[in-house]
Order: sequence, then structure tokens, then C-alpha cells
Amino acid sequence: MIERAGEKRWIVGVDLGGTNVVVGLVPVEGGEVLGLRTRPTDSARGAKFVVDRMVAMVEEAIAEVTAEHGATRAAVAGVGIGSPGPLDRRTGTVINTPNLGWRNFPLRDLIANAVHLPATLDNDANCATYGEWWLGAGRNVETLVGFTLGTGIGGGIVLNGEIFHGCSDVAGEMGHMTIEANGRRCKCGNYGCLEQYASGPAIATRAVEGIETGVETLLTEMVGGKLEDITAAIVYEAALQDDAFAQEIVHETAKFLGAGVANIINILNPEMVVIAGGVTKAGDRLFVPLRAEVRRRAFRSAQECCQIVPAELHGTAGVVGAAAVFKKEQFGAM
Amino acid sequence: MIERAGEKRWIVGVDLGGTNVVVGLVPVEGGEVLGLRTRPTDSARGAKFVVDRMVAMVEEAIAEVTAEHGATRAAVAGVGIGSPGPLDRRTGTVINTPNLGWRNFPLRDLIANAVHLPATLDNDANCATYGEWWLGAGRNVETLVGFTLGTGIGGGIVLNGEIFHGCSDVAGEMGHMTIEANGRRCKCGNYGCLEQYASGPAIATRAVEGIETGVETLLTEMVGGKLEDITAAIVYEAALQDDAFAQEIVHETAKFLGAGVANIINILNPEMVVIAGGVTKAGDRLFVPLRAEVRRRAFRSAQECCQIVPAELHGTAGVVGAAAVFKKEQFGAM
Repeated sequence: MIERAGEKRWIVGVDLGGTNVVVGLVPVEGGEVLGLRTRPTDSARGAKFVVDRMVAMVEEAIAEVTAEHGATRAAVAGVGIGSPGPLDRRTGTVINTPNLGWRNFPLRDLIANAVHLPATLDNDANCATYGEWWLGAGRNVETLVGFTLGTGIGGGIVLNGEIFHGCSDVAGEMGHMTIEANGRRCKCGNYGCLEQYASGPAIATRAVEGIETGVETLLTEMVGGKLEDITAAIVYEAALQDDAFAQEIVHETAKFLGAGVANIINILNPEMVVIAGGVTKAGDRLFVPLRAEVRRRAFRSAQECCQIVPAELHGTAGVVGAAAVFKKEQFGAM
Repeated sequence: MIERAGEKRWIVGVDLGGTNVVVGLVPVEGGEVLGLRTRPTDSARGAKFVVDRMVAMVEEAIAEVTAEHGATRAAVAGVGIGSPGPLDRRTGTVINTPNLGWRNFPLRDLIANAVHLPATLDNDANCATYGEWWLGAGRNVETLVGFTLGTGIGGGIVLNGEIFHGCSDVAGEMGHMTIEANGRRCKCGNYGCLEQYASGPAIATRAVEGIETGVETLLTEMVGGKLEDITAAIVYEAALQDDAFAQEIVHETAKFLGAGVANIINILNPEMVVIAGGVTKAGDRLFVPLRAEVRRRAFRSAQECCQIVPAELHGTAGVVGAAAVFKKEQFGAM
């Protein structure tokens, strides 16, 4: 039984990132995230420090929410954790995260034992996509694919209401799909990965390259001439201020992203593609050319049944999705 | 109950292609295809002619096999049909096949009514992949992706023992994955599709382009100087005869195909990729550079759990897979 009559129950969602840890309580039946808190990961202080911080945040969130609702700790079903990967979901182990410097780290059980609650572990990009499926943009579809554009490009695949993991938990690495067979070298070792054309750093790099060839743009002024300070966020900002060069970069990004999204539509024929990350701030300046590029590239009968939409759970998709993974694994149904 | 005690039962598999119709009886519990026969499709003679031919072939195959085994017609459970698409599986209708010139054609029910047996309809490339999964190269895996290289590049996706169709039966169009964002124009409307680099006609085109620039090769002699007669099959043949230029083309094809296979491995992380079609005749000359290219491009933890193998059911994968679709839809289990 998921919920006792008349008593609200929650799942704690934990979203561990390279920069921040985000924690909140998600009602088992869905609803608003409560007791939400964010603190820096400070991974340089070591794994024990990070785990202690995560445990403290979980305890604080539980204390706050149960006190507010006059509930007991029994109202908390458990903890869902989202972490950068690769990881082994079965053993709850982080195999290797370059950002945190961890190797074969038994994150799930360390947290579970410290808070005396059952816990689950899944990949952060999978969690973000699953969160959008459960309570965000995808709450009315069964099958969706998520692209998260940031420093890298992550992704997740939800098929018939379940995260699709593949045979070694790698499925969904949409950022490392080749769209230019002889293109830019990627840090994954491949050439021409989507990530090299549509991630935040790729956008900033293209902006700097353009300015260095003499293009006039607001961007130069916005960073006080220090080109190394240009970020994707500043490019979106300039595009919204009608800077022609910044708009051209957003447009180009939309075209590259469109090639990647069209590939997914021809291969998986999903009901929805959800785009998350800072780039969605560019709004229609991104989505109009993105959808046009997909129309140009994908099979008509596949694109006609596929919505391409921005994510809705800004900042909480990871927490909601980590809780959703716990719910699915512990209770079977969503 | 699938099989009555002591009595063998069969499913008729029908593989409708642009060139040939292939029909055979597949034991419900798996095994060798019996009563196999192939006849030209002769689609120019019209849809009624083709359906009559298919019905006649089904009846002949049933008569032959039941007579040989002293069985009655009751030993035949039904008919699985594989057809070029796009199609509507639910209604059993072929929506549109340029090769056959059909539109909204109720193929499944025409066959079912004529032979008085239940029937199912699925896409030919899906059937070929499902056949390999059931009784071919993939019989020991749960999740595999098939690439069929011919005039075009088709594909199919089997996840947890089921064909994955997507939301409008388009899933698995691996040939129309962009691997060169600004590459060759494809007849599907897109640019840089894998099909433009690794299909039979693409291979022949590259060979002719090379010869026209003055390359010396056995190929010229093999077609008596008539370059328009060069086909992919002739290129494989020359490669097996150690012709350096033909080997270079096979090698290049392997590299392009490797980019497409690596994409699938990073996105779906399958246990197996099965390559079917004439190109597999090139054997190690194809598979050695193909596997090397995938190693260069895909995530290590994804490629380590993925075998890349040639198809095993030469000429019968479509028949076996069409029968497998019938079995799955009618009996639920495989």
C-alpha cells in the first residue's frame, strides 16, 4: 500500500550535481516539492564531506516538512538519489564521476544507512527526464526523450512510463551522437558529437570565434571586452536584446540540435522530446528554428506525433525524478 | 495452449518485398523453415495479382508441409505478414509503399479472408530483426538493434523481446539518421543520412566516382568497362579478390556504418547489433574496420556489452520474423 488512509506520504529526492546538491520532499502521489534546499557540493572537500552534507540536507528537509504537517518520520517512504554516472544501479555504486573524483563509491547505501531509510540510485540525466515525465512537461505521455543542455548534453529515455537503461546503464547519451562524422573532437574520444555543437561551452566558443574574425556584437560590450567571460547564458541574453550575431548563434545551435532531435525522432518515434537547460531561456528564438529543422529532417509521420517542448520543472526535475525512481522501484506503479 | 500434445503446429511467414515474395512455415516452438518458396512480386501487374500470388503461395506451402507430416490444416495457427511500410499495424493496412504503388491497402485482411486464417502485419525491416532475435544471431539476447543494408538501409529495434514500434510505427529508421549534418541529400528530404553513405547504391556511386578520377581497379574489367553496371555486390566481390580500391570502399563504408552503429550504442546501449544484407558477404573486410570504428566512437562501457555480428538467417529472416510477430500477438509469449 502506497499511502495510509488520510495520511500524506513523501519521498525525499536528492539531486547531486558537480556544483550543487538539491534536496526536497515529493508527495508519493505527486504534487509540489516541499522543503526544497540547495547547497554547494564542495566536492574538493572530499567524498565524506559531500555525503555528510547530503545526509544533513535530507534530515533537515524531513524535519521541516513533517513538523509543518504534524506528521511523523514514518510518513517518509525513502530516498531517491540522482548522481552523475556511470553508475551501477543494482549495487547503488557510483563507478566513476570525473566531476566529483569518485570511483566505485557505494553512495546509495552510505545515505540509506545514515538516514535509516531505503534508497535508490539512478543517473542524474535519467532522473531529470523521468521527473519531467512524472510531473512536468511529459505528464500526459507514455514515451519521451529528454535532452539536457548545459556544460555537456545529457539525456534520458522514458518508454512506456519506465526509464530505459540499456544493458549497462549507458542508454540515453544523446550528447555523444555523431552528427558530423569528421567533425570537432569531443572529450569522450569521438568526433562530431552533438555536444561539440550545442552545449554551453560550444555556444561560447562559436561566439568567441566569430568576434575574433571581427563581427560587431553587443557581446563584446557585455563582457567588457573580456571574451573569455562569454558564456552561453550571455549569448542568450544578447539574443533576447535583438543582437543579430547572438541570434545567429542561437539559430545555428537550433539547427545542430535539430539534427540530433530528428535522429531521435527517426530512431525512437517518441511522443515527446523535452529540452531542458539554460538554452531554453532563449524561448522561441530557439524553439522556432529547432522545430523547423526537425521538420526539414525527420520523417513526417514521426514528427507529426511528436511534440518538441521546453522542460517545465526548472531546478526541481532532478529531485522529482530521483523520487520517481524510488517510487517506481519500491512500489512498482507510478 | 500453443501446441496440442504430440501435434506439431506451424505459423506461415510471408515476406513481401519489392522484388520477391518469400513464404514458409515456421514451427510455433521455433525450428527450421519448411515449405520455403520464393516468387517474383511482379507488382507492375497490380495489387490484386500480388495478393492472389501471396495467397496461392501460402496455400501451396500449407498443402506441402501438412501432407509431408500427415497433419491437417488445423495444425496451422495463422499467417504473419511482413511488408514494406509505412503501415498501420492496428488495422493491418499498408499506408503507402512507393515500391509497390499501394495506398491505404488492407493487405492483412485480404490475405486472412482468402486463406481463412488469422493474420498479422508488421514492417519488413522489423520482421527481419525480430526473426534474427527469435531464431537467428540474437536468439540469446533480450535487446538488439538490426541494420539491413540493401538498396536502402532499414532497421528494427527489439527491446526485452518485443519489437519497439514507437508512437506511429516509424521507430527503427536507422538509415535516416544524420551522420553528416551538411552531407549528401537523401531522397527522404534530409541531408547526410547514413543511407547516403552505406547503402548499396551509395557504395556503387563512390566506386564510379573513384574510377572516373582515374583509379585503377579490377572493377572496370569486371563490368566490361560499363561503369553503370557496378553494384555493391560487385564491389564486395572485387574486395574479396584483393582489389585495393574495392577494399578501400568497403573500409570507408565500414567507417560510415560505424558512426551510425556507435550512435545506436550510445543511445540505446543494446546487447547486440545485427548487420544484415549483401554487405555482410564482405565478411571480416567489413566487420574488422566496423568494430574498430565503433571502438573509436562509442562509450567503452556501452560497447563492451554489445556484440556486433552478421545476421544468420540468410533469406529467411523476414519469413521467420513475420511468423514471430504472429506468435507474439496471438499467444503473448515467445
